[in-house]
Amino acid sequence: MDQQTKNEVFDQAKAWILEAGERIKSNIDAPRSIETKSNPNDLVTEMDQQTEQFFAEKIKSAYPDHYLLGEEGFGDELEDLGGTVWIVDPIDGTMNFVHQKRNFAISIGIYVDGIGEIGFIYNVMEGTLYTAKRGEGAWKNDAQLPQLSKERPLKQSILALNTTWLIPENPFIEHKGVEELVKTLRSTRSYGSAALELAFVAEGILDGYLTMTLMPWDYAAGSILVREVGGIVTRADKEDLDLLNKTTVLACRSNIHEEIINDYVQLKR
Amino acid sequence: MDQQTKNEVFDQAKAWILEAGERIKSNIDAPRSIETKSNPNDLVTEMDQQTEQFFAEKIKSAYPDHYLLGEEGFGDELEDLGGTVWIVDPIDGTMNFVHQKRNFAISIGIYVDGIGEIGFIYNVMEGTLYTAKRGEGAWKNDAQLPQLSKERPLKQSILALNTTWLIPENPFIEHKGVEELVKTLRSTRSYGSAALELAFVAEGILDGYLTMTLMPWDYAAGSILVREVGGIVTRADKEDLDLLNKTTVLACRSNIHEEIINDYVQLKR
Repeated sequence: MDQQTKNEVFDQAKAWILEAGERIKSNIDAPRSIETKSNPNDLVTEMDQQTEQFFAEKIKSAYPDHYLLGEEGFGDELEDLGGTVWIVDPIDGTMNFVHQKRNFAISIGIYVDGIGEIGFIYNVMEGTLYTAKRGEGAWKNDAQLPQLSKERPLKQSILALNTTWLIPENPFIEHKGVEELVKTLRSTRSYGSAALELAFVAEGILDGYLTMTLMPWDYAAGSILVREVGGIVTRADKEDLDLLNKTTVLACRSNIHEEIINDYVQLKR
Repeated sequence: MDQQTKNEVFDQAKAWILEAGERIKSNIDAPRSIETKSNPNDLVTEMDQQTEQFFAEKIKSAYPDHYLLGEEGFGDELEDLGGTVWIVDPIDGTMNFVHQKRNFAISIGIYVDGIGEIGFIYNVMEGTLYTAKRGEGAWKNDAQLPQLSKERPLKQSILALNTTWLIPENPFIEHKGVEELVKTLRSTRSYGSAALELAFVAEGILDGYLTMTLMPWDYAAGSILVREVGGIVTRADKEDLDLLNKTTVLACRSNIHEEIINDYVQLKR
């Protein structure tokens, strides 16, 4: 993707995301629309699907040779990441959408032959748009995000971490190591949206995010953002992310990445 | 406190809180102010103290017979809650203040002979002001907050809960019960500010908040807010809060309060 195309695709995607955000906002604020649903889950399902369909139609129309990888079934069945692939989560943080009517995001990562070129995470209700272009940095709205500290030690760090990973029966990670991690950290947070948690890592308001079960659309954009500010994003076993399967993810500042994996992460499988 | 006095005190306190918020905002945004501090903790200490001093001077000047109970040492030494007492946390969520420069709050509860009459929680950087007057309801900015559901079951609930309470060595609560609670809940969140977490319970975007070590100024306002929308706020052993000592707190929707305490909370002391 040459620079001019990259800029055009970026501008086009940004315009679509803002338009999709407006649609979600006007629906979430309309009391009738919510009241007529028997179950709030129906509303999120409908908004999720409508939003992905919106992107599918826009992308197919403007860029017929691009692919779409998404959660809701309007995308392509992909066996590899050849070509240009839009990896779309129309509503990341669906539980927040249902219970909080905020703290959810549209997440779009645009990959060319498996390389993340453009990332967007849009905190819809707050109106905050995080963006990144590979090699050109990351932004929160119009402000470029600074490079992350390479010095602050783990004991002064705040990690996004779900309570789930401290439950002995969880099938993914040995909880004893997570206990030791929590005891070492300054604190933990949990916001309920992987995309936003990755954006917060990129912004430097979290030092890292460790989780066990993400789909590609949950982190496709966030991993681009975090890398653009000097952070590291891998599987929790230090291997590269493959972007086609469910995976563990550790995204964090560069100087605590190895320490977390080596000293605290013991995967069960 | 008669109704006219209550309204006047409410209006006066609200004006001071907005003014204090503006001072914090202008200081947090001033790069010079932050850069000249050797340590971000110095900044929060300074802002904490300046803000409490601001309230102490305003209160003592306008209401010489009122008392102030606060964290930073500008208040009164109180052995009981007789008379009118302003319970003030100038910056609740100091770690968020330092690491995130947002997600902290000014929290003020105004008590008359131990009864919470007026509550304010001001999410400073977001500009959201939660207010309550006893018997008159709670508001988020200009919107009255609806009464909380008395029906949604625990398994569909989201609780604010720190990872700390899942660590076996924590000295306050048996972690095994907390594990069972996490397995029962729909999900947990952690935002790093007790005052905001209580405001979120009042707003209905969290179903409850369970914690082990709050000081009176952390929950003095939030408990008024939560009760005004039909929620229950007690110690985690179901006893009344005493507002003079460090305490456990469970604030939640009324239909899950007993279930959480009876089935999941086993205090160590």
